[in-house]
Amino acid sequence: MAEATAEYKVIGTRPIRPDGADKVTGRAVYGGDMRLTGMLHGKVLRSPHAHARIKSINTAKAEALPGVKTVITVKDFPVAEDRMANLGEMAVNVKLLSNNVMAADKVLYKGHAVAAVAATNAHIAEEALGLIEVEYEVLPPVLDVLDAMKDEAPLLHETMTTTELGQKTDKRSNIANHMRFLLGDPAQGFREADVVIEREFDTATVHQGYIEPHNATALWNEDGHLYIWTSTQGAFVVQRQAAEILGLPVSQVSVTPCEIGGGFGGKISVYLEPVAAILSRKAGRPVKIIMSRIEEFEATGPTPASHIKVKMGAKKDGRLVAAEASLMYEAGAFPGSPVGAGCMCIFSPYAIPNMQVDGYDVVVNKPKTAAYRAPGATNAAFASETVMDELAEKLGMDPLEIRRLNGAKEGDRRVDGPTFPRIGYLETVHAALEHEHYATPLTGPNRGRGVASGFWFNVGFQSTVVINVNADGTVSLVEGSTDIGGTRASIAMQAAETLGIPYEDVRPTVVGTDGIGFTDVTGGSRTTFATGYAAHEAGLDVLRQMKERLARRWDGEMEKEFEGQAERATVRITPDDVTYANGVFKCAKDAGKSMTFKEVTAQMARMGGPITGRATSQPRGVGGAFATHIVDVEVDPDTGKVTILRYTAVQDVGRAIHPSYVEGQIQGGVVQGVGWALNEEFVYNDNGNMVNSSFLDYRMPTTLDLPMLKTVLVEVPNPGHPYGVRGVGEVPIVPPVAALANAIYRATGKRMTHSPMSPGYVLNKLME
Amino acid sequence: MAEATAEYKVIGTRPIRPDGADKVTGRAVYGGDMRLTGMLHGKVLRSPHAHARIKSINTAKAEALPGVKTVITVKDFPVAEDRMANLGEMAVNVKLLSNNVMAADKVLYKGHAVAAVAATNAHIAEEALGLIEVEYEVLPPVLDVLDAMKDEAPLLHETMTTTELGQKTDKRSNIANHMRFLLGDPAQGFREADVVIEREFDTATVHQGYIEPHNATALWNEDGHLYIWTSTQGAFVVQRQAAEILGLPVSQVSVTPCEIGGGFGGKISVYLEPVAAILSRKAGRPVKIIMSRIEEFEATGPTPASHIKVKMGAKKDGRLVAAEASLMYEAGAFPGSPVGAGCMCIFSPYAIPNMQVDGYDVVVNKPKTAAYRAPGATNAAFASETVMDELAEKLGMDPLEIRRLNGAKEGDRRVDGPTFPRIGYLETVHAALEHEHYATPLTGPNRGRGVASGFWFNVGFQSTVVINVNADGTVSLVEGSTDIGGTRASIAMQAAETLGIPYEDVRPTVVGTDGIGFTDVTGGSRTTFATGYAAHEAGLDVLRQMKERLARRWDGEMEKEFEGQAERATVRITPDDVTYANGVFKCAKDAGKSMTFKEVTAQMARMGGPITGRATSQPRGVGGAFATHIVDVEVDPDTGKVTILRYTAVQDVGRAIHPSYVEGQIQGGVVQGVGWALNEEFVYNDNGNMVNSSFLDYRMPTTLDLPMLKTVLVEVPNPGHPYGVRGVGEVPIVPPVAALANAIYRATGKRMTHSPMSPGYVLNKLME
Repeated sequence: MAEATAEYKVIGTRPIRPDGADKVTGRAVYGGDMRLTGMLHGKVLRSPHAHARIKSINTAKAEALPGVKTVITVKDFPVAEDRMANLGEMAVNVKLLSNNVMAADKVLYKGHAVAAVAATNAHIAEEALGLIEVEYEVLPPVLDVLDAMKDEAPLLHETMTTTELGQKTDKRSNIANHMRFLLGDPAQGFREADVVIEREFDTATVHQGYIEPHNATALWNEDGHLYIWTSTQGAFVVQRQAAEILGLPVSQVSVTPCEIGGGFGGKISVYLEPVAAILSRKAGRPVKIIMSRIEEFEATGPTPASHIKVKMGAKKDGRLVAAEASLMYEAGAFPGSPVGAGCMCIFSPYAIPNMQVDGYDVVVNKPKTAAYRAPGATNAAFASETVMDELAEKLGMDPLEIRRLNGAKEGDRRVDGPTFPRIGYLETVHAALEHEHYATPLTGPNRGRGVASGFWFNVGFQSTVVINVNADGTVSLVEGSTDIGGTRASIAMQAAETLGIPYEDVRPTVVGTDGIGFTDVTGGSRTTFATGYAAHEAGLDVLRQMKERLARRWDGEMEKEFEGQAERATVRITPDDVTYANGVFKCAKDAGKSMTFKEVTAQMARMGGPITGRATSQPRGVGGAFATHIVDVEVDPDTGKVTILRYTAVQDVGRAIHPSYVEGQIQGGVVQGVGWALNEEFVYNDNGNMVNSSFLDYRMPTTLDLPMLKTVLVEVPNPGHPYGVRGVGEVPIVPPVAALANAIYRATGKRMTHSPMSPGYVLNKLME
Repeated sequence: MAEATAEYKVIGTRPIRPDGADKVTGRAVYGGDMRLTGMLHGKVLRSPHAHARIKSINTAKAEALPGVKTVITVKDFPVAEDRMANLGEMAVNVKLLSNNVMAADKVLYKGHAVAAVAATNAHIAEEALGLIEVEYEVLPPVLDVLDAMKDEAPLLHETMTTTELGQKTDKRSNIANHMRFLLGDPAQGFREADVVIEREFDTATVHQGYIEPHNATALWNEDGHLYIWTSTQGAFVVQRQAAEILGLPVSQVSVTPCEIGGGFGGKISVYLEPVAAILSRKAGRPVKIIMSRIEEFEATGPTPASHIKVKMGAKKDGRLVAAEASLMYEAGAFPGSPVGAGCMCIFSPYAIPNMQVDGYDVVVNKPKTAAYRAPGATNAAFASETVMDELAEKLGMDPLEIRRLNGAKEGDRRVDGPTFPRIGYLETVHAALEHEHYATPLTGPNRGRGVASGFWFNVGFQSTVVINVNADGTVSLVEGSTDIGGTRASIAMQAAETLGIPYEDVRPTVVGTDGIGFTDVTGGSRTTFATGYAAHEAGLDVLRQMKERLARRWDGEMEKEFEGQAERATVRITPDDVTYANGVFKCAKDAGKSMTFKEVTAQMARMGGPITGRATSQPRGVGGAFATHIVDVEVDPDTGKVTILRYTAVQDVGRAIHPSYVEGQIQGGVVQGVGWALNEEFVYNDNGNMVNSSFLDYRMPTTLDLPMLKTVLVEVPNPGHPYGVRGVGEVPIVPPVAALANAIYRATGKRMTHSPMSPGYVLNKLME
């Protein structure tokens, strides 16, 4: 387990999080806590149909209800342009983004917004929704990716045409995009294979399930400036998306991020912000909207259901020679599933000379999918890692040994092109193989042990950090990264390490779009990596200025020893002559001159004034993350219920800045993966209505469902980061579904090809 | 009148203020608007006696009142150390600062805080004050500076000894400090004089009279961190003062400045913040306190009453040869009157070869004085400028001509040492002499015209500015300077000018101590000067980074004309080869290469990521400000009431960044000076109780009392600032009292030696 090393004083320790007290006492201000003078409460009317044409909307009765201040429909939105806009790092079609926020001519899923009300309280607003008359022409819904891909399927977007291998075609279809990644010659590879396994898999729609629902408070001020307070993974992305939808320059939109009660990728896209904004402009007052849990399930981004075909071939000695996959992902009502990421991850733990991966992004009458922790990779790994397990079995190999034999390492190429820098996949396999868990035999009936690996590429993107130095030697750190998993601490720790001061002397503050430079979302496992990188650079900017000032102060006449005699001489001191280590600046040309960090800060006012360091980062040295998980299960043969007996998650974390938070990220990812694997799914009726849209009916794992999840942190520092950081938050959700499928197979002899492997599904398999 | 010049595109224009809409619609959040969950309301019990020993305080009955959550006295404060601390730019004795916030063993003025209550509402808190039993031993008060200086005067601080000309003595006295400034040989100078005038003057205690009362909301969090929201001229000074009084490191105190409804120097020192903090710590909840107007008058910083002797000598030709002054200023209950500033200003409009100025800082049983717009200078100018008027009369000279003859200019020395850089005093005198107002004869009975000049040195101090660049070519500017007089605009304008972008493209935000580097108070007329300087430097930092990026982009192979033939050559481009003018970057080595500012910002993400500029300033090139005022009055011989017929204020403003705000500052300063001159004073009874502590009885001028105040902006750019800025906000209050005294003399033949020259005083003079 990582601890502070000789190399580092702060990194690797486990200090208290700066926001801890506020969160445990309830003082932290979440979006739901927003109160502004004269504030109205908004509610959104949502479609009862999964697919319908809107023939008319009559809001007159709702507007007449006492307490209702305004009612809006799509007519109150500017006409959205049908063009791609760069919102954050992702290009998004503005028209489709806007149409998801408020339905235009058609509703495309049950829960799609069709109107909104602002009233003096939430009850009146709710009542007013019932007075809005919407006339629909109900259309047949398409609810499954394979159905949606059929030529005769009802079309969601009548003018949408397929993009085929990068080329726009004129084929009208629900297939928005077909992409392909190719390496080597897969057909030739399969001819050389001694063993080939080909299987198909299905995964269900799953929700991010953050505790805090979406919310937005907006004030469209009389001077035309729009203020938004919201729960988001990235204030600047909300700013850009809202500006595009509302037709404003970004500089006219200020977004303040409130504390966030979980996001997991689901709090990146805007839902309520533009609605609250337009309600505010029409009503002339601030408006707050908070979603109910039903709205969360029915109208915010789940992760896609998918259908995946995988074919893998190996030589007798276990060496993989070819792999092919076809990933069909539901995008929901608008294009943009994470199928591309699934393609990039599906075979990436392995060095395979010949590969082809096809991805299909397919619209269906379900809510538009959103990112969810390593988006797309879990679906993919369920398929590929189950096939790997079957290959190992067929070859009579230990499932970790076949991974050790084929594991990717520095210099190997991914199917999507990049060559790996120094990575730690093999180190995770070694650690798993040597772990006491794996060495301990699992005995007893209906029990089985499964393993699986996973990959997530992680991202860099852009971050800004400003460090202001206080006279008492402490510093204030200003950042734009939403703190979800403890990043106030992990970023402050990197600044402290660079500055050579204690962690407690760094006070981090997360501010909104008016207070800091552009910073991308907290997502893609980028924050501790990229914002931490910026914090390090901002710290260097502080030290650089201190050295410049000390050089000026020390420059000039000084006592020198010359031929045994002390004499005075003029010595030119440049910033390069000033060193800094262990909290002390020294003059390389005069051992008698030194000042501590705190001495410098105490004298700042007499040495040129305050010191502020700034840095923006867009780091290129992103380090991919690998994990290998081991799980033991027992399957109840009478009910199909799967009980997890033991779970060990091994992961290359690069450098664990704050090991407790790294462990927490891993445990959290595993828990969510277990939910996907064993219980979670959106259950739809034939009309496309979700029938389990509550936490009573949508079954997420609780602490009662799980043993203590053990983590093993393998540290293979990322050479592309000054402290070796890799992202750690996403890859832990990748292996669990496959690991559990493999464990259930070992317990039951039945291969799982569908998730969730709920008791009913498992029981059916047992009875096959 | 200054307008945009060919030289500048933004400076000199009159755009709308960024905070305008919020202020006219009532959305701006002032301290009184603070609401926090569970917030309690605090009230302060204040001494009914001007001077008394506290024998006991019994809070039991108050604590027992339902709704009261806690009661505090000085016992709940840490024992304050008797030492000087550098709080902002001023060294302050921590013990005395603390004792002013909460009385220790003695109360030293009526209104001195002795206890405080926090309760669930303000009415219960008020009621609880009445239940606190305080036993006093009443002592004789001393209420006048001359009485206080007597050997037999009651001593406020029994252990306080006089500092005499920089040396600590062991003399126990109410005279805290006697300072002296000397230039040349005044005795010799007076021997050479043909005319000598010597007079004595008195000025009354006057209040800053800002509309918004003091307020403070504090939350002492469970993790030990203290949050303060308050109306202040400087969040960092509140942070430092509160930290000292409470015995906390500054980094444990976060101060958020709310909008401010006027300060004028009176919102620098803390009063309520430490009280609300300790109430919050004891109650475990946030606490808000707002002062009543009576508390404002009785317990917050007025400007000192004073007694001033002035002696000036001139040759027959009007040339000044010697001047002496003795300034005795009331400090209030604790040392620290602005007498030093009065000494620095009293003779500074003139080049006089021989000068001596003595200053006395004297404690009396009145509230501790605070800064008030050019603190100390108005009292001083009343005395010196009246004597100048009498000298002119005696010599048969025009009062502006004697000023033209003796006016200070670049290279002349001030009594306190510094030599003037380029200043614009003579330009103000010329402009007054040539003004239509001065050229138009004043006729009619009981009418008179007066002139007077004034000087304020202005200050620099420290500021920090961060500029974050948006992709659409706009920027966000983060600053720590409280915006009182439109400085969001005047600082944004300087940033826009430097960046070569429109004013509307700069969005300024004032943030608290967590969000920006150290920034001194908005005061001393420093903000547009010093924070503007930092904004300019931060803008240069942005341009520097853009040039670096463009140099990298443009570096390398390019098409070159060589002997009439186009050929490709490798050309090294450094940042020095990149020019920027009129919003366009160009390459000095290749005319074909250019990019606009907006083109660069649109491509930032592909050119190295976001750009943030930062600068801290501690500018040394402070430019002093001079003003010359002309006023016409009519005096009612039956009542003594003075009516102002016409007023023209001429001022060297350096460079008027936003001329409307400069004019507003001048008009505001004149109005306040008129109040001092004609009506405002604290009226005390013999017990030291102020008997006019309300806006009904304390008479401030209203628009009905004044004609339109005309301003003349003379622009002599300050060579110490990139845009020539001098401070403009303070010097306009300096001449009015003297100008009015001189006008009344011309109308009545009576010399005024006391301010206010209220109807009663003038009538008495008329009846002499």
